[in-house]
Amino acid sequence: MRQFLIVGHDAPTTPGFSLDDLAGGAGRLDVLCRCVNSAFFLSHSIRDDVRVHLVLGDEFTVRFEGSDLHRLNPDERSTAALIRTALEHREDAIGHMPAESTPGVSIRQMGFEATLEDVAGDATVVELHEDGDPVADVEPPTNPLFVLSDHHDFTEREASLLADAADERVRLGPEVLHADHAITVAHNYLDTDGYTTY
Amino acid sequence: MRQFLIVGHDAPTTPGFSLDDLAGGAGRLDVLCRCVNSAFFLSHSIRDDVRVHLVLGDEFTVRFEGSDLHRLNPDERSTAALIRTALEHREDAIGHMPAESTPGVSIRQMGFEATLEDVAGDATVVELHEDGDPVADVEPPTNPLFVLSDHHDFTEREASLLADAADERVRLGPEVLHADHAITVAHNYLDTDGYTTY
Repeated sequence: MRQFLIVGHDAPTTPGFSLDDLAGGAGRLDVLCRCVNSAFFLSHSIRDDVRVHLVLGDEFTVRFEGSDLHRLNPDERSTAALIRTALEHREDAIGHMPAESTPGVSIRQMGFEATLEDVAGDATVVELHEDGDPVADVEPPTNPLFVLSDHHDFTEREASLLADAADERVRLGPEVLHADHAITVAHNYLDTDGYTTY
Repeated sequence: MRQFLIVGHDAPTTPGFSLDDLAGGAGRLDVLCRCVNSAFFLSHSIRDDVRVHLVLGDEFTVRFEGSDLHRLNPDERSTAALIRTALEHREDAIGHMPAESTPGVSIRQMGFEATLEDVAGDATVVELHEDGDPVADVEPPTNPLFVLSDHHDFTEREASLLADAADERVRLGPEVLHADHAITVAHNYLDTDGYTTY
């Protein structure tokens, strides 16, 4: 199981946003939508061994479960619509209990700290960092959890929590990438591990 | 200079499409927009040594020139708006002469064959193919041109033209990727070349 946790600092926490303005009024929800795309899509299928956690404004976390997803399409707008539907169910999520909004998509009343704590248990937490070890030098974990930020840097508190939880600190290359591109590179790195000829 | 040529088989050839329906009525223009994103964006800058050629319905080619781009944003909708503006200038493109529609974006009356012939001259043409050599075994070219297709396979004629033009036939990994993800992986491969520690 590969997991990706992405923090959306400006992301909406209510469903009253327009699908026509994802990069503006919807707090750069386009970034999170592309992360979902990169996490799940292969050319002719969906990666069903993947789980994505989108932290919205440190209030809610929307989870996408690859094995249960039926209505995911690659474009930003339709993924944003799934997130909006999840936010319409936010009051059904009580305590840390999830509410499923569409197949494979659920919402929880959990911010970054609670989600990280909840998810990190069974996973190898991978922090992507400019000063990390080159990914080619690191033994690929079996159950990695990659923790990423949207277009903003992590806050000091988030960075501190992540540093405490991280099992590995990795760099994907000499360039600093958008979160969705980092997910694509991480997948490719894990896909090609062990394949001298593939 | 890294170049990417992407064939949009169903892409619009007139500007009368809605930005609200990129994945439907606009012939999967969302795919091409994500390819532009993957080709140009780094975390805090644009790759200015990149050129992208989008073939629209085998009639027009829209070119994005990294060194001249001023108005590119990462989301699909705003990139689609740039393509639509280019199509509004399609009648200003006479013969094979380009018409610039916005800074760094121009349109040409050229389909796949003419564009490939025009661009391939100074470049190492790289065909991405399931039966290609693993990318890790290939010496990275200095001036690669990666030729990709949208959500459809290449037509027989396109595949034949590409096979004739290709200098290398490469596979990026064991999984078959979306075109935009392939661009991200290709960049990472080229970025990390020669960096044992980066």
